[in-house]
Amino acid sequence: MSSTTQTCHILADFSIIPMGVGSNTTKYIIECQKILMESGLNFNMHANGTNIEGHYEQLMTVIRKCIDKMHEMGVPRCDTNIRLNTRTDKSVTMQDCVRVVADKINAEINI
Amino acid sequence: MSSTTQTCHILADFSIIPMGVGSNTTKYIIECQKILMESGLNFNMHANGTNIEGHYEQLMTVIRKCIDKMHEMGVPRCDTNIRLNTRTDKSVTMQDCVRVVADKINAEINI
Amino acid sequence: MSSTTQTCHILADFSIIPMGVGSNTTKYIIECQKILMESGLNFNMHANGTNIEGHYEQLMTVIRKCIDKMHEMGVPRCDTNIRLNTRTDKSVTMQDCVRVVADKINAEINI
Amino acid sequence: MSSTTQTCHILADFSIIPMGVGSNTTKYIIECQKILMESGLNFNMHANGTNIEGHYEQLMTVIRKCIDKMHEMGVPRCDTNIRLNTRTDKSVTMQDCVRVVADKINAEINI
Repeated sequence: MSSTTQTCHILADFSIIPMGVGSNTTKYIIECQKILMESGLNFNMHANGTNIEGHYEQLMTVIRKCIDKMHEMGVPRCDTNIRLNTRTDKSVTMQDCVRVVADKINAEINI
Repeated sequence: MSSTTQTCHILADFSIIPMGVGSNTTKYIIECQKILMESGLNFNMHANGTNIEGHYEQLMTVIRKCIDKMHEMGVPRCDTNIRLNTRTDKSVTMQDCVRVVADKINAEINI
Repeated sequence: MSSTTQTCHILADFSIIPMGVGSNTTKYIIECQKILMESGLNFNMHANGTNIEGHYEQLMTVIRKCIDKMHEMGVPRCDTNIRLNTRTDKSVTMQDCVRVVADKINAEINI
Repeated sequence: MSSTTQTCHILADFSIIPMGVGSNTTKYIIECQKILMESGLNFNMHANGTNIEGHYEQLMTVIRKCIDKMHEMGVPRCDTNIRLNTRTDKSVTMQDCVRVVADKINAEINI
């Protein structure tokens, strides 16, 4: 029997905070975005992190690559925060999440 | 002297997880979005939470209203996760965060 | 009618990450611990944050004081992560949470 | 060259929130604690999550097993929050983190 995390399409969100370096994080975020683009996974950067979707192994591999990249760039310490949403009742995409709510709010306003 | 949290424009992100009710959270998210719209603060929903910007008191008031609304709707338990980004070196908006990175990546690709 | 967040005893956990300074955070944690001691609230530091219990306003006031202290100490940017557990079905303390689980595991092992 | 996440001793903290089931989470926490005990890793449960230390692969394997167990127990949806602290400048244990701060605070109080 395959486990949920092997088969489940997970909506995740992560944020990596570089410590022990300057307060400007742009150059680090850019390198992480490149890793995400190379991963082939669906992702979306927002103001406090990045949404990404995939299987558990795929997600943990890409997050690991981002953390490794930070340290390769000379960051002595990183604080990474990850949110994972796993569900067995149905499979939704990042776009579904946002669209369902937006559609219902628009429907209420227009009635 | 005013403190940083009184004057600082904070980029925050929050996610409220209703527990002890069904796994479909759409109706709860819609009510939170209405509270956010009424707040007059700048916000942006994404697939794993909502970005919002404002002063500390404004943010904590609107998050409190969302949690209270969940419980008023019959949710017996909520797990709320908040990320706050405070900085004294400069003031940036949610749009700035995403645009700066996108612009630099596009510049690299186009060269 | 009073709202849940006014009356509810909340179990919270928070972690403040100083950015733009050295990677050793001990001196910052010590100042936060002093603020927590002065608050009179029940709290417990662990390896990745601090558990604290109280009403919403009490918690948000003490977390704000900690963030302000970081910036007063010269930290240009902080990333704060807060987890809040609110519930209307019963009131539990930090000690209850850990003890209930430990008791049940011990009971199973001893049988 | 080995990467940081392959060699680095990581201090992590995680919390799994079961959704779509009752608000009492004790039985789920007990099963996760059993998985943690079987892992052989050093861990410590607190009121809002569990501290755990190990290499990235070890941590992600044990967290995956806990999420899978939740779903096997009938939980339709889980929200998992993970904090990872990686550092290349030195290696510290969970006990070190708490003790260093406690010692310094005690020293200040006793002088």
